[in-house]
Amino acid sequence: MDRIQRVKGTRDLLPEDMVKRRYVFEKIREVFEIYGFKEILTPTFEYTKLFELRSGEEVVEQLYAFEDKGGRYIALRPDLTSSVARLFVNSFQNAPKPIRWYYIANMFRYEEPQSGRLREFWQAGVELIGSQNIEADAEVIALFIESYLNTGLKEFTVNIGDRVLLDEFAKMLGVKDDVGLMRLIDKKDKITREEFIESLKNFGLSEEGIEKVFALIELKGKPDDVLPKAYELFESETAREELKTIEELFELLKAYGVEDYALIDFGIARGFDYYTSIVFEAIAPNELGIGSIGGGGRYDKLIEVFGGKPTPATGFAIGIERLIPILESKGLLPEFKVGSDVFVAYIGDDLEIKKKAIEVTQMLRKAKIKAEYDLQGRKLSKALNYANSIEVKVVIILGKRDLAEGKVTIRNMESGEQTKVPIENVVEEVKKML
Amino acid sequence: MDRIQRVKGTRDLLPEDMVKRRYVFEKIREVFEIYGFKEILTPTFEYTKLFELRSGEEVVEQLYAFEDKGGRYIALRPDLTSSVARLFVNSFQNAPKPIRWYYIANMFRYEEPQSGRLREFWQAGVELIGSQNIEADAEVIALFIESYLNTGLKEFTVNIGDRVLLDEFAKMLGVKDDVGLMRLIDKKDKITREEFIESLKNFGLSEEGIEKVFALIELKGKPDDVLPKAYELFESETAREELKTIEELFELLKAYGVEDYALIDFGIARGFDYYTSIVFEAIAPNELGIGSIGGGGRYDKLIEVFGGKPTPATGFAIGIERLIPILESKGLLPEFKVGSDVFVAYIGDDLEIKKKAIEVTQMLRKAKIKAEYDLQGRKLSKALNYANSIEVKVVIILGKRDLAEGKVTIRNMESGEQTKVPIENVVEEVKKML
Repeated sequence: MDRIQRVKGTRDLLPEDMVKRRYVFEKIREVFEIYGFKEILTPTFEYTKLFELRSGEEVVEQLYAFEDKGGRYIALRPDLTSSVARLFVNSFQNAPKPIRWYYIANMFRYEEPQSGRLREFWQAGVELIGSQNIEADAEVIALFIESYLNTGLKEFTVNIGDRVLLDEFAKMLGVKDDVGLMRLIDKKDKITREEFIESLKNFGLSEEGIEKVFALIELKGKPDDVLPKAYELFESETAREELKTIEELFELLKAYGVEDYALIDFGIARGFDYYTSIVFEAIAPNELGIGSIGGGGRYDKLIEVFGGKPTPATGFAIGIERLIPILESKGLLPEFKVGSDVFVAYIGDDLEIKKKAIEVTQMLRKAKIKAEYDLQGRKLSKALNYANSIEVKVVIILGKRDLAEGKVTIRNMESGEQTKVPIENVVEEVKKML
Repeated sequence: MDRIQRVKGTRDLLPEDMVKRRYVFEKIREVFEIYGFKEILTPTFEYTKLFELRSGEEVVEQLYAFEDKGGRYIALRPDLTSSVARLFVNSFQNAPKPIRWYYIANMFRYEEPQSGRLREFWQAGVELIGSQNIEADAEVIALFIESYLNTGLKEFTVNIGDRVLLDEFAKMLGVKDDVGLMRLIDKKDKITREEFIESLKNFGLSEEGIEKVFALIELKGKPDDVLPKAYELFESETAREELKTIEELFELLKAYGVEDYALIDFGIARGFDYYTSIVFEAIAPNELGIGSIGGGGRYDKLIEVFGGKPTPATGFAIGIERLIPILESKGLLPEFKVGSDVFVAYIGDDLEIKKKAIEVTQMLRKAKIKAEYDLQGRKLSKALNYANSIEVKVVIILGKRDLAEGKVTIRNMESGEQTKVPIENVVEEVKKML
């Protein structure tokens, strides 16, 4: 028969992958918890309606949606924010605010697989629910930056934009389809300059308007450089108030000691339509063709959309399949050894020697040493080949004659040295070699 | 609008749930790793065909199967064994044997939700691939037992049955539908004695045959009691060889020191049709209506079914949603504190005092203390109410006058005591209170 393959856009995670992922997850989790966030997990699937209600068009198109055996329309989650909002509305509206929740979970989107983009992928994220203040934005952006730092990443920036400003910008230019203009500006780096200008003209922009769009896109960099220019570009009171808030945001980030990683980029909007003001994304220079390694923003209207009382919220998600290859390519992950450190071999094939091998293996395991013994009943040379192939550091060899004297042979696989030791000293001797 | 609920049979895991789960997962993981098993993870969905090829009828009926946007027939995994076999066949047939893999992952089955049974549930399991020896069965059964022990569970038994014996039994009785008979015997505890006898008659069994079935079901308990009776009941050479193997299995379990938890129960068959000889399940007495808390067995034919070379294998899975409520009901889980230990409040509303609050919070966080500050800009009394509600152990209060002297107030929330300390001593003083 034909072998069955795995489904396109998915991957198997092997032991070498899993150990790296656990390392990165734990590094991120550590910072999340230090910031007082608490872990939650929602179901893998929800009613499809939940995701349709709030997501950008693109996300709905990419849903893994289906009908279950009970006739329910359900879909695999494309992110966790909708589920978190659903949970909040149903059970936590009266809880003390703000609520600090985090998650480390897999998501599903039917999109074309490419570098760092899979149809099943993992995110580590937080949601901070119940504060409308810029302090909350500063808190999640600082946490976002410190999460990357704790994984060992050093070269990256968090670029901060603002939906309110983009809205004001669209108004200023007299563009009615403000969402369309935002989307266009958001994907400016994915099209040519000519295509970009052509598309801007389709929004009815004059030469002057187009110049202003380019001025907006240029509003990138350190706040001291960018903000004075921004005050010149934006005219409305609302925009100026928002710029003051952003000034305050950067002041707060200084208090966190993370201001070196934060930049303004007023040309970013992020894919989700539910963001309402501050949005941000992390970029780490790399040669793997990987773009944003995570992002987030404020979503003050979403909880209302799901039938809750108006409740402000902000949060972010880190893309694990994008972060890990970058860490790896820069040599920022430790070397990991997976599997057993010690292999117990034996000479002979009777029950008694096997029982002895188990007893020695169990002595090691009780001392928290990763150990296994030969389950195959192989001849010694073959057993040693296996021990070699699984890269144990120590092999213990049991022979009848030695055992009669209460001894076993210990072989250091790095140095090749062999010594006979009394069984009661095995753990101690092995520990020296690990 | 109507609020959207979560889908039937699924649940939200709140911080108090997650912290217990992580504890149990880590306890199990620790033993898996000490036994030399290495973590893997396969995709959440596979081609539906993969699960249809090998699973019992029941599992196929319970699949969450659907067509994706590319016209592929895919299904959410009902367990991990099929995926592991698929992975093995495609990429690991030539790897050194045995292969030791473990996983901690979620599974999906469309069945009626009931105590300890959800439509999305988690399992921690192992697969040991490449050894046909009883040593391999002993290794996974010992690991199974030690995994439960490491979570703190003490009262439980692992009941061991054997498909070969059930097969021989069916032959002996002249029953052709051996799988049907096995299934019937397997669910004997779920129907009345009368229904059971009636169903046995439908298999064409005589009075004598039915008596033998009851004799088989009575073969339960310690091997010293059960095996002599089993040698009397079974007549074929194959059956007698198998009984000798089981005798050996229990000898090996003694060497592991886990024999007290292992019992024979020749009346169990387990739901999956792919088991070929030794099968086992764990039962912990409880008042929650929870049956088996995990199980496994040998599946020597499955890898062939998936197009691989004939390869013996054995493994098990622990049902997390069944284990945790039992641990909890017996008081075997530690008390966990989730969220922040320290809350930083401040008096005033200007940027400078907020920045100071951030700086103090960051001092604590850098010392690995879980801390947060008031993001809401509340009056002190309200901020303290919040601190109370999230059950922090310490509150730090920043006031302008104290800060001018380089001091802050630390309040021990348990004792109610308050002291003023220099800012540079905050970390040290807080540590004393945690």
